[in-house]
Amino acid sequence: MFETISIIGCGLIGSSILRAIKNKNLAKKIKIFDNSKEVTAYLKKENICTNISSDIHQCVTDSDLVIIATPLSSYKEIIVSIKDSLKKNAILTDTGSVKKEVMKIIHNINLKDVHWISSHPIAGTEESGPRAGQAEMFKNRWCIISPSKNCAEQPVRSLKAMWERIGSKVKIMTPEEHDEILSLTSHLPHAIAYNIVRTVMSVEDDLKQEIIQYSAGGLRDFTRIAASNPLMWRDIFLDNSENVSKGIDSFIEKLNELKKALNDKNGNKLYQIFNSTKEVRKEIIKAGQDTDKPDFGRKKN
Amino acid sequence: MFETISIIGCGLIGSSILRAIKNKNLAKKIKIFDNSKEVTAYLKKENICTNISSDIHQCVTDSDLVIIATPLSSYKEIIVSIKDSLKKNAILTDTGSVKKEVMKIIHNINLKDVHWISSHPIAGTEESGPRAGQAEMFKNRWCIISPSKNCAEQPVRSLKAMWERIGSKVKIMTPEEHDEILSLTSHLPHAIAYNIVRTVMSVEDDLKQEIIQYSAGGLRDFTRIAASNPLMWRDIFLDNSENVSKGIDSFIEKLNELKKALNDKNGNKLYQIFNSTKEVRKEIIKAGQDTDKPDFGRKKN
Repeated sequence: MFETISIIGCGLIGSSILRAIKNKNLAKKIKIFDNSKEVTAYLKKENICTNISSDIHQCVTDSDLVIIATPLSSYKEIIVSIKDSLKKNAILTDTGSVKKEVMKIIHNINLKDVHWISSHPIAGTEESGPRAGQAEMFKNRWCIISPSKNCAEQPVRSLKAMWERIGSKVKIMTPEEHDEILSLTSHLPHAIAYNIVRTVMSVEDDLKQEIIQYSAGGLRDFTRIAASNPLMWRDIFLDNSENVSKGIDSFIEKLNELKKALNDKNGNKLYQIFNSTKEVRKEIIKAGQDTDKPDFGRKKN
Repeated sequence: MFETISIIGCGLIGSSILRAIKNKNLAKKIKIFDNSKEVTAYLKKENICTNISSDIHQCVTDSDLVIIATPLSSYKEIIVSIKDSLKKNAILTDTGSVKKEVMKIIHNINLKDVHWISSHPIAGTEESGPRAGQAEMFKNRWCIISPSKNCAEQPVRSLKAMWERIGSKVKIMTPEEHDEILSLTSHLPHAIAYNIVRTVMSVEDDLKQEIIQYSAGGLRDFTRIAASNPLMWRDIFLDNSENVSKGIDSFIEKLNELKKALNDKNGNKLYQIFNSTKEVRKEIIKAGQDTDKPDFGRKKN
């Protein structure tokens, strides 16, 4: 499908892409670069990739597709550093969770003869690092791609096909659409998950131990979300701060409504609030985004 | 273990207790009462219970253990109605998620010669009704019991043994301790889950459809929690309103801190916030309250 694919950054997502394109034979040659010796040593030892570049330029030279899978805050340095080593007509993509800021960077760098098409595979776990990567990571998951304005059609088709071959369902969006939707489906929920865990854990130490003991009643599910890679999330919030900040305002407005109903002992209003959200779950299950298998079957101990 | 056990209310929790005590042979006779004809017809048809009382008095007469598994708001009427039919020295318990208000009801009713010991099995799913019930519901789950002041030791031991036989780990707490801990581990997280789903779904209709489509990135997990029985949760919030309201205040305080860091583009502060919550998850896994298996393996349609 491609002669050569290069992956820069082989953590959870990068190493999953590596495994997936290798399994599906999507390139004759796969080259990787990661500035962590621990990461590259692991990939070598496990025989996941043997073509490991110690130099980022050498990694991208002659590549038809270059995938950046590092935290958002590292993009600028990486792109500035590789831009003169990229092959003419190469496709350059990423896996980041925010798009608008990256588009600005690309615009300022003024890439020539390279097709920049941003990707966001909506996949991952709360784990980090290549050990947690999986070839099946993208199966049945959405991948949103945002081509730069005036991008030719053929490279978009090629990149779309690559994501589809490793299992993704692909949707094309503008960076603005992407960032607004993701601020609501992912970034705001993560902010809230971090916040509930932090709120509950700000109690005194003896109570804290009891809270951990009895966390199965609801808190536990938030701690799973709030255990994601902190560096990655710092970058996401910095890059999408306006949308998330707007979301927080409307969240607090709604929460004050709930608190008023609570303080007024307004049972009708509480029932109405709790009942309205039940429908949303049904629609999500209908849309194939989750299973209706109840959660209590989760493996214990 | 008991001659006769009666269960009032056979929804998700009541029918699970019924299945569990039947499986473990914990009583010679099990009698049930539910004011929904649909519920009793289902239990009869599936041969889960044949001794179905159409009269609540007849259901509890001669019982050694009476378990109320109905919404909190129905307790007063039920207890007033059965109090003169209860056997001398019977144990009366419940399965409710809040304790302090119930203790007041019991105190005002002035039950005589009956051992009131409140129970709270921390178990359940987002489903409702007897179809979703399971004999294994309580396996490895905590059950918190709160005996009334001056309750004799023997009935506490008997009730504790019953919960243990159906798989629970039992902890004895005062109603005040219970309500404070549960407001943090369960009630506040549920309030927040309801609120995030309601916030996100208050956008315009066309955006709403896209949000449902791409909900896998975080929102999905909240909709699972926010799909729980609205009547049950209305009652929980009414009965534990003071603790939850206090929790909401401290949640908003923390959220405003996060928003400030966001608006100030304060990366260090954001990293610090996101990193602090990662540790909590490790402690929860260590405490055996969850598995560290990542979530992306969840079954997809």
